[in-house]
Amino acid sequence: MKLSVKPEKRTLKSLFEPKSIAIIGASRRPEAVGYAILNNLIAGGFKGKIFPVNPKADEIFGAHCFSSLKEIPETIDLALIIVPSTTVPSILKESAEKGAQAAIIISAGFREIGGEGIKLEAEVKKIADEFHIPVLGPNCLGMINTDPSFAINASFSRTMPRAGNIAFLSQSGALCAAILDYAKGKNIGFSKFVSLGNKTDLNELDMLQYLKNDSKTDVILMYLEDLVNGRVFIDMVREITGEISPSKPILAIKSGRTPQGAKAASSHTGSLMGSDEVYDAIFAQAGVLRVDSVEELFNFAIGFANQPLPQGNRVVVVTNAGGPGIMATDACVRYGLEMATLEPSTIQKLKTVLPPTANFSNPIDVIGDAQHERYEAALHTVVEDPNVDALIVILTPQAMTDIEEIAKVIVSLDRKTNKPVLTCFMGIVDVSPGVKILEENYVPHYSFPEDAARTLGAMHRYQQWTLRPRTDVKKFQVDAKAADKVLSESLQKQLSFLCIDESMRILQAYGFPLLPWQMAGSIEEVISKAREIGFPVAMKIVSPQLIHKFDVGGVKLNLKNEKEVEDAYREVVQTIAVKPPKIDFRGVLIQAMARKGQEVILGMNRDPHFGPILMFGLGGIYVEALKDVTFRLAPIREYGARRMVESIRTYSILKGIRGQKPSDIQKIMECLERLSQLSCDHPEISEIDINPLIVYSEGEGVAVADARIIVAPNTKFGAA
Amino acid sequence: MKLSVKPEKRTLKSLFEPKSIAIIGASRRPEAVGYAILNNLIAGGFKGKIFPVNPKADEIFGAHCFSSLKEIPETIDLALIIVPSTTVPSILKESAEKGAQAAIIISAGFREIGGEGIKLEAEVKKIADEFHIPVLGPNCLGMINTDPSFAINASFSRTMPRAGNIAFLSQSGALCAAILDYAKGKNIGFSKFVSLGNKTDLNELDMLQYLKNDSKTDVILMYLEDLVNGRVFIDMVREITGEISPSKPILAIKSGRTPQGAKAASSHTGSLMGSDEVYDAIFAQAGVLRVDSVEELFNFAIGFANQPLPQGNRVVVVTNAGGPGIMATDACVRYGLEMATLEPSTIQKLKTVLPPTANFSNPIDVIGDAQHERYEAALHTVVEDPNVDALIVILTPQAMTDIEEIAKVIVSLDRKTNKPVLTCFMGIVDVSPGVKILEENYVPHYSFPEDAARTLGAMHRYQQWTLRPRTDVKKFQVDAKAADKVLSESLQKQLSFLCIDESMRILQAYGFPLLPWQMAGSIEEVISKAREIGFPVAMKIVSPQLIHKFDVGGVKLNLKNEKEVEDAYREVVQTIAVKPPKIDFRGVLIQAMARKGQEVILGMNRDPHFGPILMFGLGGIYVEALKDVTFRLAPIREYGARRMVESIRTYSILKGIRGQKPSDIQKIMECLERLSQLSCDHPEISEIDINPLIVYSEGEGVAVADARIIVAPNTKFGAA
Repeated sequence: MKLSVKPEKRTLKSLFEPKSIAIIGASRRPEAVGYAILNNLIAGGFKGKIFPVNPKADEIFGAHCFSSLKEIPETIDLALIIVPSTTVPSILKESAEKGAQAAIIISAGFREIGGEGIKLEAEVKKIADEFHIPVLGPNCLGMINTDPSFAINASFSRTMPRAGNIAFLSQSGALCAAILDYAKGKNIGFSKFVSLGNKTDLNELDMLQYLKNDSKTDVILMYLEDLVNGRVFIDMVREITGEISPSKPILAIKSGRTPQGAKAASSHTGSLMGSDEVYDAIFAQAGVLRVDSVEELFNFAIGFANQPLPQGNRVVVVTNAGGPGIMATDACVRYGLEMATLEPSTIQKLKTVLPPTANFSNPIDVIGDAQHERYEAALHTVVEDPNVDALIVILTPQAMTDIEEIAKVIVSLDRKTNKPVLTCFMGIVDVSPGVKILEENYVPHYSFPEDAARTLGAMHRYQQWTLRPRTDVKKFQVDAKAADKVLSESLQKQLSFLCIDESMRILQAYGFPLLPWQMAGSIEEVISKAREIGFPVAMKIVSPQLIHKFDVGGVKLNLKNEKEVEDAYREVVQTIAVKPPKIDFRGVLIQAMARKGQEVILGMNRDPHFGPILMFGLGGIYVEALKDVTFRLAPIREYGARRMVESIRTYSILKGIRGQKPSDIQKIMECLERLSQLSCDHPEISEIDINPLIVYSEGEGVAVADARIIVAPNTKFGAA
Repeated sequence: MKLSVKPEKRTLKSLFEPKSIAIIGASRRPEAVGYAILNNLIAGGFKGKIFPVNPKADEIFGAHCFSSLKEIPETIDLALIIVPSTTVPSILKESAEKGAQAAIIISAGFREIGGEGIKLEAEVKKIADEFHIPVLGPNCLGMINTDPSFAINASFSRTMPRAGNIAFLSQSGALCAAILDYAKGKNIGFSKFVSLGNKTDLNELDMLQYLKNDSKTDVILMYLEDLVNGRVFIDMVREITGEISPSKPILAIKSGRTPQGAKAASSHTGSLMGSDEVYDAIFAQAGVLRVDSVEELFNFAIGFANQPLPQGNRVVVVTNAGGPGIMATDACVRYGLEMATLEPSTIQKLKTVLPPTANFSNPIDVIGDAQHERYEAALHTVVEDPNVDALIVILTPQAMTDIEEIAKVIVSLDRKTNKPVLTCFMGIVDVSPGVKILEENYVPHYSFPEDAARTLGAMHRYQQWTLRPRTDVKKFQVDAKAADKVLSESLQKQLSFLCIDESMRILQAYGFPLLPWQMAGSIEEVISKAREIGFPVAMKIVSPQLIHKFDVGGVKLNLKNEKEVEDAYREVVQTIAVKPPKIDFRGVLIQAMARKGQEVILGMNRDPHFGPILMFGLGGIYVEALKDVTFRLAPIREYGARRMVESIRTYSILKGIRGQKPSDIQKIMECLERLSQLSCDHPEISEIDINPLIVYSEGEGVAVADARIIVAPNTKFGAA
């Protein structure tokens, strides 16, 4: 399986940088969308030509209005379509014939209304494909490009945002209105602002492809309700965040976090996997910072867009108030930062510039009556300290505080240093002139210390991500033919549950370390095989009809001698004999008893949309009680396998607590990577549970004690 | 031990409602605090008499200035002291002699500077006690009472807040400035605003006592860095939140959440207990809503202050944008709310008032072009639905949205209904006229749906708290004398670790169910006692020097017959013999082997400040890996014991997952209550670990398998 199937590379130049735009459905009625958009295009100062099209009007806003596309005397770059949905397909076709290289369909009335709308949308897609014309929408707010060489507001927003280095993609058109108003209030600028609508043709992948090379964009924000392709998304984001320089951080809200009703699933892995966990996995693998709210999205964005990444996690806090200093400290620790320990020389210097009542150890308290000189002296001293990676400056509006002057001091500090500087002027009214100075000069400002600390924490995490070891997907030497044979036999028999011996053979073919095992079908055989393996042994019934072999008494553990083995076998045979429905008894599996180790579970569940998804967690009852498991889309790299193991909350148990030796984490990782390869090689496998995998101390390996594999011949992944 | 030792009831009438105020240290210099305060008092419109005192001035702001307190021709109610710290004690004494019934000391330079400051503060306290004069501060911002009958701004704030029904107490003076500015921006009003300063005399308990009966206060907010007395705090808050009507919710930030370096502790309980966990326990027991940030504090406050509590957790969301509707749904579920299922008749009615493209199932989407008529129709329809307990109204500023009219519609809805209505107008600039209308009319407004949902979640949790079953602290019949005997023997021998048999005798005296056990000191005895108890048995070495009996091979499990018992005993004796330091070997404890059950841990650790703190968690390695434990201050009520058990993350294991039977939770609770009684009765016990307590299925009881008790004769709780 190829790591990534990238979408066809499409030029979106005419979408974002058109020289001429036809607005089909331009209107004179102020309450019409076609009026708002034309107005926005003109007011936004679009640098190209605008051709309003409306058969019922001669001119709009003083511009000549064409009765049809054909009447336009020149060719057009971009068609902006705002006509009733039923006429959209014909207008789109006409536009393409007129030479349009891109189209935006604002009109609603497609898939979202069902029935006829679905058909109309299919028509739109067909025309787009036929004419190779990239189409944004339908059912969207439009697109804004603030680049002054183009200055396009092809949307019906109330506001044209300030130019900036942040691109925003939204799958909700209505949210765009709120975002633009919020950004206006916070002085936040955008490079591109795109409402994706129904994603009939162009989707987030096309936009990311474009934004990757967009020199005006440094940070990408997304509001998503779904992804068109998880695997491609991961690979494309990894390029944008890691393989171009400078890296462009991507922040996303994925709404619909509410756990879906658990789907019917036969495996542990399946029952533990909700759609939200899959998205978490995708974002973690891709290096996307997932946020919970619009507020967090923009809090983070202004940090990433305006400040360098911190080179480490050591923060110094400078404040004129003790309480907020403590709150900042609490928050820094909570978000994975450390309070910097200042050099003695720094503290010495602080003592010469601050009054004796000040607090000289981090958080530095310049005391309530501090004015800008004191802030300046303190800030310029601590910023030089080699133990400081980042600064948070807090101000509370005391009676003596010269708020604007202090803001200016911070702005000039920010210009001089390559360490990130975040600020928090607490309050709203009195602090606002200072906040304005900060915002206008691209110094990130937060109303509360917690928000500044959380942002810095995210910047630090992202910096760690950019520094992660680059590993590859390993290709293990496996006996794929042996696995194929087992699988095709099972598929021929139309059996979806593999017997334990079949599962074991597949895992063996893929190089998993197994407990020694043998099949046996008679008293003589069970005794000789048990002797061969060595006592004590376990005995497990083998039958494709007995999925829950434990429940029917089909598992006997810790058989210590020949007598016990013989008795156990007789019991198993008896159990079979009294079962009412005739079952296909294939004998028993004799297995070495595992010596005690830590039990973990590895699994795979094939998602109809995203393909094979791997799971890892500690075994036993805690998996269910705590849902302490991690997921990743296959294939995984070595680093991904490591992160899966490290990310469970009970990781400390594997690392070894109470003086216990660490577990063989390297071998768990290898099993996860082998599971990844197995899952990718065999799309006919729909679910795998390796439960438990027994893990011994570092260097002592792991062993599969039990496994269950389920095949589904007719999945859409059946033909790889 | 009495449940509560309340502070002496003190009248704070002269502090909050003085008829006359002397300002000692009033100043003519605009940069002086004594200037700002006098200015604030006058500008705030204080209804009583003001006597500025300053030997160097004749008049300030046109008012006659007295050269000393003695010169004032009348008696004074409140002394406001702003003189250098060294003269504060003498001025305080003079004020008291002049008849002042209360004092506020603004001046800094006390405990916070160490050395001489500590002495000065002790003097202040001495004078306060001697003259029975309640003193606020020192080192504080002052106090504000917005009640128009008094209108006192006795602080050096930049702002006099609007009158409202929220009281605010702060242990950080500097934070007050930020809070007042924030509240001004959000149109939030206060009843009382108090800067506690160093809490030398008056502290949070006195303030709560006063606010409990303050008719102007409906909600109490606190910023705390410590508590003077946890137990009294709990009882007082329980009165305020539960025993007066209407209940006054209390919200608190406790800063310094960062875990302290783990203290050296001999018990599990001690090592798992950080100071922050203790505060969490206190707030949970008291019914205080602990919040993480100032933003959350005020988000919650405006909900509690302006809206009724929801009668259930079923929310309806009305929005003009799909995306934010999904985000609100996600957030509601995250914060413990449910999306209301509307009656078919409600949906039918919605269909008659909304366009067909609207979404009629919750969240109700009135669609982007909705104006106030449509909001009005939708809101008045859903508010009548009996399945709806609360409403969240979302607006995004679309081109057509008549924001102010919609705000007015919501205000009038809010006046008619007794269900809570929270709003979210997303954005900043365009939405602000609407937000202003909402705020001025006491309809809580949030910038993002998550904040509205989180607030409603807190209001629902609080409503659940007010409805909790009222239980008492049980008094079990115990053999306190037997426990006393064991303890005093140990104390006489200066031994701090009790042997296991001693621990068992104490637990037995307090009615804990134990596994059958016997002491034995010879081969004959171990065999006869083992026979008496019945095989298999465990054997545990008994010696006050062998604390970690497991580590030295002093524990033998699952001894199945006389031979095994005999061998085990010989081994134990041999172990002792080769130990280099002579140890006091008291024999072995023979104990019945417990049949398998769920292992839990119960513990107590006596905090030097807060007294006995109880712990509960699941046993085994997970306790340490997950720190999945809960704490409560003793004594606990039955309800508190239940909450301890229910609050661990692995509670589902005790309730029974994977079809297992539920554990005997009632018996765990009883053990916690007995542990509470034991801890309160015997202050000489400093730590207890009951680990494990084996728990069987419901109705089948529990059994203590092992326990460790540590005594400390000289703790400050040694004399109860």
